Amino acid sequence: MSEPRKRLFPIVTADVALFTLADYRLRVLLIRRANNPTPGGWALPGTVLKPDLDRNVDDAALRALASKTRVVLPHLEQVTTSSGPDRDPRGWSVSVLYYALLPSDQVQAVAGDKTEAIEWCDPERPGHRLTFDHAKLLARALATLQDKVERGALPLHLLPAKFTLTDLQRACEAILGRELDKGAFRRKIADQPTLVLVPGEYVRGPQRPAQLYRAAADFSF
Amino acid sequence: MSEPRKRLFPIVTADVALFTLADYRLRVLLIRRANNPTPGGWALPGTVLKPDLDRNVDDAALRALASKTRVVLPHLEQVTTSSGPDRDPRGWSVSVLYYALLPSDQVQAVAGDKTEAIEWCDPERPGHRLTFDHAKLLARALATLQDKVERGALPLHLLPAKFTLTDLQRACEAILGRELDKGAFRRKIADQPTLVLVPGEYVRGPQRPAQLYRAAADFSF
Repeated sequence: MSEPRKRLFPIVTADVALFTLADYRLRVLLIRRANNPTPGGWALPGTVLKPDLDRNVDDAALRALASKTRVVLPHLEQVTTSSGPDRDPRGWSVSVLYYALLPSDQVQAVAGDKTEAIEWCDPERPGHRLTFDHAKLLARALATLQDKVERGALPLHLLPAKFTLTDLQRACEAILGRELDKGAFRRKIADQPTLVLVPGEYVRGPQRPAQLYRAAADFSF
Repeated sequence: MSEPRKRLFPIVTADVALFTLADYRLRVLLIRRANNPTPGGWALPGTVLKPDLDRNVDDAALRALASKTRVVLPHLEQVTTSSGPDRDPRGWSVSVLYYALLPSDQVQAVAGDKTEAIEWCDPERPGHRLTFDHAKLLARALATLQDKVERGALPLHLLPAKFTLTDLQRACEAILGRELDKGAFRRKIADQPTLVLVPGEYVRGPQRPAQLYRAAADFSF
């Protein structure tokens, strides 16, 4: 391990686990870093905080996403803050970790910058060894998202603007990693004022047409 | 407002809302600061992170509590991280906020250091104007604690090692700020493996003796 440099002030970074759905499977965006201190290493998108540019750390997280993936204005939520002398070879560091949710129909808009490759990966088995302590951060972000959905929050930020209740159930199942009983799920969401029926709009299904819904204007995840 | 100094690296602080119970009322510890940048101002106990001393920000939070209040090893939990150029007159700053829970029978052990006054205050109406953005941080810490108890977590870290179920109900009521139905509360906690009956130990009550309980060894809040 490289010797951490002594510094009076720690490095502060914002790191983001950006989740979306691809064919109703949960995916997280990983980046193959072009830059020091770990060129070639796979990581969550992130950036060092710039006090002259960023109004706060949330801003730094949005800047990291915009510059490294072209994603602007996703749903962003703080997960935890990790810190210590050994987690970044540049020295004593503090990472503020976020998860962000991207609607499944916006995945095509995501592109890496010229120097860094990107890949949508299974968050449970990303298929790459992650640099820094990002494997731990990713696991923590996933657990926080799962906990929230387990407690009844509806992950509408992963769905297109209009969706069926089956789409919603599949999104919950993709996050939780297990199937849900359709009857129990429908009963649970029946009273949710955050789900608004779109009158007269349906999608054709294998059987009968399925009603479309949207999120209420004041929906918060 | 003072002009924030330009810095390449932000100041990182750990700030702690230390809660306990006094006569079954929730109390938070406030400190009248002796030091710059806000001498005489009331605040949550906190400290600037010292990369040469602290293994991580949690360590800095414990160091702040130990040095300013003599409290060692409370239950400590991260709440959120706040940041920006204007929240601390010293310049761009990042505050990692924690809440800590102190058993009600250990309140007497808390003492300020020589230069700073301390006071246990009602977290909803602290009776002092708080410096920095600490009024906002305190409200956030309280809301997080309340949310956790609302979701069924038992605040055993606020109670002595042995307690009655009435003590536990009163602790929950003090946190939530409302009375709970005794029958519903007893049913809710009946299956909790974290509550262990202490055989043969009771406290005398106005009516019949009340059974004492303790936290299970693997209890986590």
